Amino acid sequence: MKNPVERLREQIIGTDSQKAALVFSERNRRYFTEFPASDGALLVTAGESYLLMDFRYEEAANYAAKYCKVVGFTNLQEKASELLTQNGVKEVYLEIDKLSVAWARKFEAEFQKHGIDVVLDATLDNAIRDQRMIKSPEEVKKIEASQAITDAAFEHILPFIKEGVTERELALEIEFFMRKQGAENIAFELIIAAGKNGSQCHAVPSDYQVQKGDFITMDTGAVLDGYHSDMTRTVALGKVSDEQKAVYNTVLKAHMAVIDQVKPGMPCNEVDKIARDIIEKDYPGTFGHGLGHGVGFEIHEWPRFSRLDKTPCQVGMVVTDEPGIYVPAKYGVRIEDMLLITEEGCRSLTKSPKELLCL
Amino acid sequence: MKNPVERLREQIIGTDSQKAALVFSERNRRYFTEFPASDGALLVTAGESYLLMDFRYEEAANYAAKYCKVVGFTNLQEKASELLTQNGVKEVYLEIDKLSVAWARKFEAEFQKHGIDVVLDATLDNAIRDQRMIKSPEEVKKIEASQAITDAAFEHILPFIKEGVTERELALEIEFFMRKQGAENIAFELIIAAGKNGSQCHAVPSDYQVQKGDFITMDTGAVLDGYHSDMTRTVALGKVSDEQKAVYNTVLKAHMAVIDQVKPGMPCNEVDKIARDIIEKDYPGTFGHGLGHGVGFEIHEWPRFSRLDKTPCQVGMVVTDEPGIYVPAKYGVRIEDMLLITEEGCRSLTKSPKELLCL
Repeated sequence: MKNPVERLREQIIGTDSQKAALVFSERNRRYFTEFPASDGALLVTAGESYLLMDFRYEEAANYAAKYCKVVGFTNLQEKASELLTQNGVKEVYLEIDKLSVAWARKFEAEFQKHGIDVVLDATLDNAIRDQRMIKSPEEVKKIEASQAITDAAFEHILPFIKEGVTERELALEIEFFMRKQGAENIAFELIIAAGKNGSQCHAVPSDYQVQKGDFITMDTGAVLDGYHSDMTRTVALGKVSDEQKAVYNTVLKAHMAVIDQVKPGMPCNEVDKIARDIIEKDYPGTFGHGLGHGVGFEIHEWPRFSRLDKTPCQVGMVVTDEPGIYVPAKYGVRIEDMLLITEEGCRSLTKSPKELLCL
Repeated sequence: MKNPVERLREQIIGTDSQKAALVFSERNRRYFTEFPASDGALLVTAGESYLLMDFRYEEAANYAAKYCKVVGFTNLQEKASELLTQNGVKEVYLEIDKLSVAWARKFEAEFQKHGIDVVLDATLDNAIRDQRMIKSPEEVKKIEASQAITDAAFEHILPFIKEGVTERELALEIEFFMRKQGAENIAFELIIAAGKNGSQCHAVPSDYQVQKGDFITMDTGAVLDGYHSDMTRTVALGKVSDEQKAVYNTVLKAHMAVIDQVKPGMPCNEVDKIARDIIEKDYPGTFGHGLGHGVGFEIHEWPRFSRLDKTPCQVGMVVTDEPGIYVPAKYGVRIEDMLLITEEGCRSLTKSPKELLCL
């Protein structure tokens, strides 16, 4: 696979020397160059790509930034104008999803002085979104390394799940473990929801103390080298009722049916339907969210396994498979893996066990 | 002092029923209403203020949001248009620093259908910036509560500073302590810089192991109830040289001189000069950053104690006083308190000791 800057160039510039793209948002700059910096811009022309960095980052970028030539600046707009003029560029695409009105104004004002048009439509955003949906083998390895920390944290936390421990204590213990294992951060505010709290799919960890007979849903993930992981497991403390077991097994059945059936070419909304049909049959109205979302350089990326997204599955996509059943005021169950779409169907990037653990 | 929504209204709307302000950014919405939500908008007219929330937040906002009437929406632009039309508004100010081009387009398109002009200049951003510079007594209490955690973390970490402990281990121990004390987050990526690393003012905690004779600079802060704290202390492990002591005492002298002399009406650049003159005299060229920055609802706010900011000090500002000396490839020292500007001069919100601790 070509490098990410070449892939972007192919999509929107090709060999047209009058066109360029200016990637301004922090996250996308890092995606293309693997270099984290709070300020700067990546300028891609037909013949070259320049990473514009101020004095704080210029030296480090020279050592570490990939797929680009590092250029220092004191005034970003002026330096970008200079490079665009040198390259004979007449039209520059900007991202509009993350570029503020104030910054767009600054670029427009400076570029227009040099007769360069600014394109403020969704062309660049869409191209980056489409590209980021398909992970390179290197990106998949980074997601797997991030998931290895999440799997280890799951194994680590099980002995801490005892009567009286609070959701907040469990969340902190998982977070600290991940950070000590080298995670640069947690992938999102971890969700630990026990007992009745489990019926809220986005519960915030509280001071609720775990009791015997509770389901405990843990939705956790790490960030490593910029890449996110995302996994949910529901475990039980002590014995659970037959009703709880039946709910658990229905969620597991829906989750596994997706792994068995998903394949390239299947529209995302049909993937969602595989799990939804199984749950709706016995527990109608209890699965109130989409089946999954892309994961990678951000925790929520495209595509979505949802009723609204008809994007066909493609080899290289990494999407979560996370059906759930939420019984209001009683409990909830969710099981989540990250699936890599492959030629053959899919491969789960998640290693933690899925059978119901009664601790 | 009037509530924050009233203060904003006074600044840019007054009693003009044809004008309104739409606060869209997450941080500013929370500043005005004390309600955290990842989506929504605050609409302030001459007669009313509305917090527009989707179904995920509407109920909770009804209980917790202050100084506004909560209104549910499914389409944000349409609901805002409806309220603006009801109120006879003809002109709406938007923030441009944090509003993306894509969102600005959505608001413009919908509002123009109803004959409402969108003002995309810096009026609203500047008004909010000026207002947030002056903290209310309630805000000062929240900053002090946040600082109490940071002070406690300093006391907590001292026994951990031993030969062989790494910067990263110390940073994690401080973070975990703060979180266990109830901090909702750390205020920024904590800086722990020992030995030679101390000469970089923004060092990232590394695997460097603390040695005897090292200075250890710890720049730490917590977030509590949305409000940030920020403190730096430099301590030593074991005995330090006379040269190190002299450097420490010069930084302390510069720091204390600011506390003694700052007062309402003094321009910020003159405050910077108080500390800078003392350091430049004996250690020229070693103090390579500004003296301080506003702190509150964000870790870096206005004003700045810097050569470039001539804003006069006003009662209610909270600004850091953080001179430093950085001796390249040898060590660094920085001492930082948060100062509240008062009628009499200032009051430090920081309680941790400042004399050189040799552990």
